[in-house]
Amino acid sequence: MAKHINASGARVISVDLPSGLFAEDNTKNIPENIIKADYTFTFQLPKLAFLFPENEPYIGEWHVLDIGLDQDYINRQDTPWHFMVQQDLKPFFKHRKKFDHKGTFGHALLIAGSFGKSGAAVLAAKAALRTGTGLLTAHIPGCNYEIQQSSVPEGMVSVDEDPSYFSAIRDISNYSAIAVGPGLGKEKQTQNALKVLIQNYSRPLIFDADALNIFAENPTWLSFLPPNCILTPHAGEMDRLAGKSSSGWERLEKARDLSFRFKCNIVLKGAHTAIITPDKQVIFNSTGNPGMATGGTGDVLTGMILGFLAQGYSPMFSAMAAVYLHGLAADLAIRRIPAESLLAGDIVNFIDKAIRKVFY
Amino acid sequence: MAKHINASGARVISVDLPSGLFAEDNTKNIPENIIKADYTFTFQLPKLAFLFPENEPYIGEWHVLDIGLDQDYINRQDTPWHFMVQQDLKPFFKHRKKFDHKGTFGHALLIAGSFGKSGAAVLAAKAALRTGTGLLTAHIPGCNYEIQQSSVPEGMVSVDEDPSYFSAIRDISNYSAIAVGPGLGKEKQTQNALKVLIQNYSRPLIFDADALNIFAENPTWLSFLPPNCILTPHAGEMDRLAGKSSSGWERLEKARDLSFRFKCNIVLKGAHTAIITPDKQVIFNSTGNPGMATGGTGDVLTGMILGFLAQGYSPMFSAMAAVYLHGLAADLAIRRIPAESLLAGDIVNFIDKAIRKVFY
Amino acid sequence: MAKHINASGARVISVDLPSGLFAEDNTKNIPENIIKADYTFTFQLPKLAFLFPENEPYIGEWHVLDIGLDQDYINRQDTPWHFMVQQDLKPFFKHRKKFDHKGTFGHALLIAGSFGKSGAAVLAAKAALRTGTGLLTAHIPGCNYEIQQSSVPEGMVSVDEDPSYFSAIRDISNYSAIAVGPGLGKEKQTQNALKVLIQNYSRPLIFDADALNIFAENPTWLSFLPPNCILTPHAGEMDRLAGKSSSGWERLEKARDLSFRFKCNIVLKGAHTAIITPDKQVIFNSTGNPGMATGGTGDVLTGMILGFLAQGYSPMFSAMAAVYLHGLAADLAIRRIPAESLLAGDIVNFIDKAIRKVFY
Amino acid sequence: MAKHINASGARVISVDLPSGLFAEDNTKNIPENIIKADYTFTFQLPKLAFLFPENEPYIGEWHVLDIGLDQDYINRQDTPWHFMVQQDLKPFFKHRKKFDHKGTFGHALLIAGSFGKSGAAVLAAKAALRTGTGLLTAHIPGCNYEIQQSSVPEGMVSVDEDPSYFSAIRDISNYSAIAVGPGLGKEKQTQNALKVLIQNYSRPLIFDADALNIFAENPTWLSFLPPNCILTPHAGEMDRLAGKSSSGWERLEKARDLSFRFKCNIVLKGAHTAIITPDKQVIFNSTGNPGMATGGTGDVLTGMILGFLAQGYSPMFSAMAAVYLHGLAADLAIRRIPAESLLAGDIVNFIDKAIRKVFY
Repeated sequence: MAKHINASGARVISVDLPSGLFAEDNTKNIPENIIKADYTFTFQLPKLAFLFPENEPYIGEWHVLDIGLDQDYINRQDTPWHFMVQQDLKPFFKHRKKFDHKGTFGHALLIAGSFGKSGAAVLAAKAALRTGTGLLTAHIPGCNYEIQQSSVPEGMVSVDEDPSYFSAIRDISNYSAIAVGPGLGKEKQTQNALKVLIQNYSRPLIFDADALNIFAENPTWLSFLPPNCILTPHAGEMDRLAGKSSSGWERLEKARDLSFRFKCNIVLKGAHTAIITPDKQVIFNSTGNPGMATGGTGDVLTGMILGFLAQGYSPMFSAMAAVYLHGLAADLAIRRIPAESLLAGDIVNFIDKAIRKVFY
Repeated sequence: MAKHINASGARVISVDLPSGLFAEDNTKNIPENIIKADYTFTFQLPKLAFLFPENEPYIGEWHVLDIGLDQDYINRQDTPWHFMVQQDLKPFFKHRKKFDHKGTFGHALLIAGSFGKSGAAVLAAKAALRTGTGLLTAHIPGCNYEIQQSSVPEGMVSVDEDPSYFSAIRDISNYSAIAVGPGLGKEKQTQNALKVLIQNYSRPLIFDADALNIFAENPTWLSFLPPNCILTPHAGEMDRLAGKSSSGWERLEKARDLSFRFKCNIVLKGAHTAIITPDKQVIFNSTGNPGMATGGTGDVLTGMILGFLAQGYSPMFSAMAAVYLHGLAADLAIRRIPAESLLAGDIVNFIDKAIRKVFY
Repeated sequence: MAKHINASGARVISVDLPSGLFAEDNTKNIPENIIKADYTFTFQLPKLAFLFPENEPYIGEWHVLDIGLDQDYINRQDTPWHFMVQQDLKPFFKHRKKFDHKGTFGHALLIAGSFGKSGAAVLAAKAALRTGTGLLTAHIPGCNYEIQQSSVPEGMVSVDEDPSYFSAIRDISNYSAIAVGPGLGKEKQTQNALKVLIQNYSRPLIFDADALNIFAENPTWLSFLPPNCILTPHAGEMDRLAGKSSSGWERLEKARDLSFRFKCNIVLKGAHTAIITPDKQVIFNSTGNPGMATGGTGDVLTGMILGFLAQGYSPMFSAMAAVYLHGLAADLAIRRIPAESLLAGDIVNFIDKAIRKVFY
Repeated sequence: MAKHINASGARVISVDLPSGLFAEDNTKNIPENIIKADYTFTFQLPKLAFLFPENEPYIGEWHVLDIGLDQDYINRQDTPWHFMVQQDLKPFFKHRKKFDHKGTFGHALLIAGSFGKSGAAVLAAKAALRTGTGLLTAHIPGCNYEIQQSSVPEGMVSVDEDPSYFSAIRDISNYSAIAVGPGLGKEKQTQNALKVLIQNYSRPLIFDADALNIFAENPTWLSFLPPNCILTPHAGEMDRLAGKSSSGWERLEKARDLSFRFKCNIVLKGAHTAIITPDKQVIFNSTGNPGMATGGTGDVLTGMILGFLAQGYSPMFSAMAAVYLHGLAADLAIRRIPAESLLAGDIVNFIDKAIRKVFY
């Protein structure tokens, strides 16, 4: 019957779920047997399947219908799937107090950028500062010294011995949080430096971009990770880390396994970014838009997570708040700037407005 | 009689066309026999002759009078002359979808800039990003490394082996579109590199500025062009490519011949920029103003065409949309900034507003 | 009884002062005997103890109740403690006159920045210019030349012989005021250069950041200071200069002693910044907010003091006006930018608005 | 009697002119015999003496009273003294036309900047572009290459053979106007290069700042100047060129002599900038404010004169329009930015608004 309806050319509206689509795993489902709806009106809560790109042809545009189920009852259900909204963040936010000083808000270290990719460090540094770290030091290769310092006067710089790539960092004891990866490249010396870093640091680290790609090429290193790290792969990086997935569902399951195995948080970036905690809980984000599909937005997110972690927030809250505000900043920006024109730097410029909207 | 009227000192108003002026080709017309109108009120449609600078003294300020001719009938006429308005673009624009990611929007390569002319690469890169390319790499000489990276943090850089000029580029297989020319200079090594580029690339390329001047000095190379390329000469560059023209009409005819011969699109820039397709169709633009007569505006246009082409739009649509939006951005800017003060960078800053106005 | 009230869990409101707390010195007080109020409503004037961080747990949020004491009588009391409000500054401000020229407003010299810390010089230079110095020269190491000149086109640069650190400055006779310290580092050659500077200059100098840390390591040098200098330590730098303090009260007393001993003004930075004059008077600031607890805000303050001193204002007025306006600029900024996102550069951008609000 | 009134402490109001003050030359006047008015209400027109700083103590704040004298009669009087208002400029401004292209608006050459003074070239270049030159090339020493190109992407750069100073320029034939001087320094090689320039160029040049100081040290070179050049000294530079003056009146007379002798236009900068033409006519400016007494505003003015001259305007109109708009831009800026905070870069940012106000 699905075939007839799908071929009819009529506008198709599904209630709760398109017939033939399962609410969670559709890996072994038969595509031709699923109704392709233009609109889906679902009961009470979005279903997990709605959040994967492979199901978009079946679900179309979806809306939630409140059918009056008891919210307390819902909240008491034991489920690994969570959908993050603004109210989930607010209680954990610490407002600044009168006698706080810059030491109160930590000192973030960002290891980023390489020859030809200095912008990653600039964008992440600005994002970390706008998110509230008290101090920020960017560890960068010498070729990017003037670029970084001209662009981010409020930040300090530690220059690598290698002129073009991250090759070593001496003293990391003064920092309250460290992120590594944006624009880093995968040179041999960078791989070594990353290995040394994870072996010599015992607190949570944030890994993004090429740091993840280096792990993908050296999968045994993941066992050296300090507990409660944050990894921020997009779909391609996730596949490199955990093997190719044929669906969003499969990718998410692999991410949960990895998260559990290495006791790390994974921020699996996409249209509905998922934050996966070491106990396999999954928190889906509700902000963001396709204008974010442009170079550098991942660097901004890494900077924002770093900004929260440096201030003493937990890795889980840091990831959640950063992901939510990052998407919200883009949502606010897109009211003025069309999706095509939105740049990563615009998102940085709207971080303050997003923080104000959520926490004030 | 024209002489008497022209010498009278009276205000002269022409209806449809000033007497003595032909609607299209006036190459062999006798200037003294043409009425010099202060205003021309023309029937139903602007005439081709209105769009050439050499006829401005005869036509003055022109307005179209709707005399009720049947629009369907007009549309069915077979003509190579078209006048582009907003409605011509809208149906072909692809709005972004939820699960689109930065890979969806391509990776543009810009080969631009040289010692003393780094701004061309900066302006074109910003324009390409604001127009929507997912990723952008600028291939530039080493002397401009810090300038480019400081100015465009969202873009990446590939550095040429030559410190001052474009001399070679190794791997071009990863890019979804390539533009070459702004601020390039005409050094020997640059000429060679351009030759190698066109011989090793099979998809449409965008050529501007010194890339065109190099073709003018090596006219046989045009036969190596991959099909459906885009060339963006202004009048002076067109004359260098196809020989000196004594009128806008003659220049347009030469451009149509070149376009047909080398199966390329030509964007002949001027007050009424003309987009000429390989089948000799001509689309005149209706946006723009004389504030754009300032250094760098051509670089911005090249970046915008590149931005569209990288996203997967056809060369023809890319050229049309970029030309229209480029002029519209300047028209929006000029409401605040007088023509004398308008800079190329202002046009970049209004690209988002132009896209919003046309496509939203 | 205090223990019972503090343990009660009730909302506690104190009148005038929480029972058990002394109005000034609580060094030898017994913490358990002091009421911990949520709110304190105090009579007529804030008490000194309110301004120290160690008393925050007892006082909570405080408000002043006007109980009608005679203001003239209050003003006649001889007290070293003053609370600065806008009206204290206005009478001493000199409005510009028609025939004033840039020479009228002095030439400021800023000695700041080092390898990896160029932003300190950029922020201080901008602040000095926005505060009104006629001319500004930044003396910086060569590594920061392009950063400084790109960021502050209105300023000039004097380049040190050392590529990375302040090591010497030749001619200082042309400057109307000098500030030294932001981002300077404590290299051997910098220490020597600072020593030479204070031995060869007879007018008031401004010392901040690493200049103070160098004094802390060379305490005998303080006796070489020209009279009426301005030192701007935060609590940590003050403790390095004068020994560790266990309370804000103790730190303030040590600062008053130092001030008196070396005939200098001390700007002791904190939530209530205190300006201490050589005659031990203390002026507490009433502007500012915890958004200022971020890297670079101290550099901005140093630049502002320099900007006033260069124009010919007294060291005391320069310090007072700069401290007040610096806090006010942040207070104005924070109406738009939440405390977490506020950067030092934002404060620079609000200096003009703060000056307008206070003096126009 | 003047002494009694001046000593009275009363508020003094003068009508037409303070008693004892001459309307023009007060060189030999006896200061004690002149009334010191707080306000002067003068008949019909400001008097020349009002425009000199030395008379400010006598005149106070002045206002013009229209007593109904015949304006035509006034206009017919033969006087070298003129007071420029907006209506004097408007008739000579050429609005842009549809088919104008960037070649129509000329190519300006700016020779400016040196090691430590790159901002002068940046500010002047931006000002020239905002004033309407079609193209701009800055000839600068190599040390400022990245600064200039990062800051002014719309401009091109020609790099001197000397890394730090102007030492030679090869081909100047392509430029429609040339300005030389801002931030140049007075090195030996710069002096030689300036000499070669004036000996090899036959059209009007613009000289500012150190170019004028070099002439002051080599006064015989003024005879090599091509006719109708523009010199833009402030009072100090004028005194170096023509000898120390003891009053504004004397300085103006010396400037008129110099102007006449070397057939050049002199822009004598001050509170009432005076444009002096080769036939000794003097045009006083009516715009501007003391916020302009800050480093770099002279560079902006030079850029603006260059911007007009490059477009084909006469030296006299270029000087008049630039001086008027420069002051007006500052007057518009100061509505938002207090005089103390106003920077040269702010004036650049208000050039467009000033042009719009005067010519649209």
